[in-house]
Amino acid sequence: MAVWQDLHHLPAYGLLQQLALRPYDLTAPGAISEARLATYTCRQAGFELLYAMQRVDEAVIAALQQLADQSGAVERFLEMKKGAVANRLDGYESENRQVLHTACRDIFSDQPLCPAATVQAREQLAKLQEFLAELDSAQLTNEQGELFTDLLHIGIGGSDLGPRALYLALAAYRLPGRRVHFISNVDPDDAAAVLEGLDLSRTLVNVVSKSGITLETLTNEELVRAAFQRAGLDPARHFVAVTGQGSPMDNPARYLRSFYMFDYIGGRYSVTSMVGAVMLSFALGYDAFRQVLQGAQAFDVAAEERDIRRNIPLLLALLGIWNRNFLGCDSLAILPYSQALVRFTAHLQQCDMESNGKSITRQGATVSYPTGPIVWGEPGTNGQHAFYQLIHQGTTVVPVEFIGFRRSQFGEDMLIQGTTSHEKLLANLLAQSLALAVGRPHDNPNRFFAGNRPSSVLLADCLTPYTMGGLLALYEAKIVFQGFIWNINSFDQEGVQLGKLLATRLLQHFGGLRLGDANSGLQDSLGWSLLKAAGLIDIKIANKAEQE
Amino acid sequence: MAVWQDLHHLPAYGLLQQLALRPYDLTAPGAISEARLATYTCRQAGFELLYAMQRVDEAVIAALQQLADQSGAVERFLEMKKGAVANRLDGYESENRQVLHTACRDIFSDQPLCPAATVQAREQLAKLQEFLAELDSAQLTNEQGELFTDLLHIGIGGSDLGPRALYLALAAYRLPGRRVHFISNVDPDDAAAVLEGLDLSRTLVNVVSKSGITLETLTNEELVRAAFQRAGLDPARHFVAVTGQGSPMDNPARYLRSFYMFDYIGGRYSVTSMVGAVMLSFALGYDAFRQVLQGAQAFDVAAEERDIRRNIPLLLALLGIWNRNFLGCDSLAILPYSQALVRFTAHLQQCDMESNGKSITRQGATVSYPTGPIVWGEPGTNGQHAFYQLIHQGTTVVPVEFIGFRRSQFGEDMLIQGTTSHEKLLANLLAQSLALAVGRPHDNPNRFFAGNRPSSVLLADCLTPYTMGGLLALYEAKIVFQGFIWNINSFDQEGVQLGKLLATRLLQHFGGLRLGDANSGLQDSLGWSLLKAAGLIDIKIANKAEQE
Repeated sequence: MAVWQDLHHLPAYGLLQQLALRPYDLTAPGAISEARLATYTCRQAGFELLYAMQRVDEAVIAALQQLADQSGAVERFLEMKKGAVANRLDGYESENRQVLHTACRDIFSDQPLCPAATVQAREQLAKLQEFLAELDSAQLTNEQGELFTDLLHIGIGGSDLGPRALYLALAAYRLPGRRVHFISNVDPDDAAAVLEGLDLSRTLVNVVSKSGITLETLTNEELVRAAFQRAGLDPARHFVAVTGQGSPMDNPARYLRSFYMFDYIGGRYSVTSMVGAVMLSFALGYDAFRQVLQGAQAFDVAAEERDIRRNIPLLLALLGIWNRNFLGCDSLAILPYSQALVRFTAHLQQCDMESNGKSITRQGATVSYPTGPIVWGEPGTNGQHAFYQLIHQGTTVVPVEFIGFRRSQFGEDMLIQGTTSHEKLLANLLAQSLALAVGRPHDNPNRFFAGNRPSSVLLADCLTPYTMGGLLALYEAKIVFQGFIWNINSFDQEGVQLGKLLATRLLQHFGGLRLGDANSGLQDSLGWSLLKAAGLIDIKIANKAEQE
Repeated sequence: MAVWQDLHHLPAYGLLQQLALRPYDLTAPGAISEARLATYTCRQAGFELLYAMQRVDEAVIAALQQLADQSGAVERFLEMKKGAVANRLDGYESENRQVLHTACRDIFSDQPLCPAATVQAREQLAKLQEFLAELDSAQLTNEQGELFTDLLHIGIGGSDLGPRALYLALAAYRLPGRRVHFISNVDPDDAAAVLEGLDLSRTLVNVVSKSGITLETLTNEELVRAAFQRAGLDPARHFVAVTGQGSPMDNPARYLRSFYMFDYIGGRYSVTSMVGAVMLSFALGYDAFRQVLQGAQAFDVAAEERDIRRNIPLLLALLGIWNRNFLGCDSLAILPYSQALVRFTAHLQQCDMESNGKSITRQGATVSYPTGPIVWGEPGTNGQHAFYQLIHQGTTVVPVEFIGFRRSQFGEDMLIQGTTSHEKLLANLLAQSLALAVGRPHDNPNRFFAGNRPSSVLLADCLTPYTMGGLLALYEAKIVFQGFIWNINSFDQEGVQLGKLLATRLLQHFGGLRLGDANSGLQDSLGWSLLKAAGLIDIKIANKAEQE
């Protein structure tokens, strides 16, 4: 495969810079023609990407195709799926790991791309299926012989955001009588609020931490174990673990069952591993979870297409690079017109910003172009009554990715003023995309819309386990493609270490002060004075000697 | 009062531009001294603003003071509270309204600043208090003579985000047995999911729409009324309205009671009006709601201080302008280290972006400087495991406003590894602010942190109704100050109109096609073809003749 090259060294880069001097004018008469709408549509694996409202024309699309080819993005993606050590830097200490979240979905093939990882995925799924059968058949019950009705999922970051987003997205498909709750924040009020009103006697607790030493998760686990003990319940009959094999949490004395995750699956790409599997299968049933995997697998395969006009994840990646690196936009709004996707943007915010919020290349040089944007958003139509004012008329251009579905999940709807709620929802989505693009002239400057604000629309028929899996993998592939094209390592997260290090120092100091008295009034010193007391000011924080 | 001037015409603007060429270097040896930490702290109304980690020095603070003085921000704020027509443009048709959300809080004084508005606020509060007493004393019950236990709040935008954020923030203080639920999105799955499992017979429904014609809210109201009827319940015994006097919703035949909001209170500033009052008083009790008002009132008064070092909202506004207009940052992350504030950032996202996402001055000219930033964020420590990677090491600098409290709400905590969860929470907040500022040199470029990423910390003792009210009013005042300094009208939202207009056209077309058949398979045409069919392409959308 070609050597890694910085974005601005790819031959197509200069061409795209030239083209960006006069991007397509969406406000010109006839700019949004029927032909354009038809041409700039890509259909794949149950989704349509409508990109006529992006500031692109044939020349830009052709140049983006060259950029994709020159970067080797698709080849690198395929190598990644086959087990290449994609999580690494050249010439510097780094994690040096494979990146194989796709192996969790490659279980339907007789010839998986990375057989060893898929064997492990199948083993864990078989163990899970057995566990679920024991729950269903009342082989495994609570102390009173009752079935478990609730599951409390404890995790943070990748062990929380993706699983939670998918649970909320698919809550309409829950098995009767099954509910899931989440605790993530180390803020003790998070656990207190969730535990309030939960019947612990019928609750399974699923503790998720790859390392088995995540501070927030262990702290919350102890809070919850204490609550079980206060209720006279034996935690060992209620707790299961999702963790790395051999981690401190891989302990049969403390957990009913341990499910394994592997070091080749990064937290933010782990939803389809046991990290999401245990909770989602409990809530939706094993078969529905398999449909999630099937939907994801469909996009893992679809993303191998080299023609960008026929590859939704790659096209979305390139349109993002066009907006970020050539049209100069710092952020990306992801706006699902689906209340069920209420936390999906938060998941993507993590997946994207933690992957691509990087400043050095794979060779350790400082990048000389912008990388990952700020990703944010809320569901429509709610957002229309919140921040769309700025998107339409603010001084900063915000590219938008809309997501919508032709049918609702519950199918409960009624005609009001001649249309259903769901039609109102979709009509608003389309109208917003159009309005952002074409703008409006007006004599009153306050009613003038400049237009030329780019957006895409991702449409599918209905949000089901299958399409949810597809949407997830589509975005995972998009993010990975962007990282390849930016020549950065999308799979580590060294940027979270410094804060962690300093927090540990503060806590060591605090623990030392306490001398065992929880009510010592120490809270009053929780302010800047703590920095001084812990020796963290008036010094150069992390000189060479202090580097881990 | 001085005439309105554009930001770049204020004399201090050029000085600040000069100073921005060499902003304070937070990474220099000794840059974060004990003296700096003490000096750059502002205490007011139960809050501390710690701003030593901003890239400011004495010269910048002095210049920002001049900017504040020259803009007349404090005088304009005082005039606004007294009833000036602050929601207007000079020389163009505009809303021409007073801006008097502060009058809702000015009920504790014998000499309110705008007596007429405060009289109206007191009347509504008295009506509410009477209503609550009837609920408590079982004068007002359901069909079976039972007390109401649940309240379903239906609203969108300002009628949803702020009320919901405060309910979640204060859920720890709920009256026993009282719960609140929210429906906002026109997505029918939102209503379906909320209605599932709700005992309608003991539920009050609070429908909130100033105009009485908000599409989403009326649609959801009809969905919920239909559910009551299916359950054999009389909506007129369960529904209350919050609306403008004389609106279509001000109808005693359909509602138990109507509470009024007035046209001088904008939706995004309406939490402390009846928009939030009815729901919050039901949930927390009337006295707790009054504490919210008292906390807000404290900051309404505190914001009158002219010395920016002693005025938290004004100082926060100016630090934001320093970062936005002089250091070139497009976004602002608001990161509360409090799970209870899980939706407060979403409220501020609306309040800020809808207020200040504007491109024209109060005189109708195109602004020649950036106005409101993109506001986004999630609670810590969760965010640390999500997007902090980009904040620490990405190519875009994101200024941060941290929010924290010295004590938890529930007080349920335990010592793990020598410290409580709440101490871990606060230690992480302080460590993040420090890490962003000072950075870290390192031989491995992947472990290098550039530092000089600015942040502030807002600290209070505990999140209570009083401090919640304070925090709300603090940010409201901050946003208003920024709008005054940018010389924009922060109180209208013309930018939401075009999308609404186009959606209405699409729906009219759709309704016309339907001919009364809800199952006509029309969903399949929900795509770009709809734009064509509705005549919205190949034309210049909104030429002069079509302007409303």
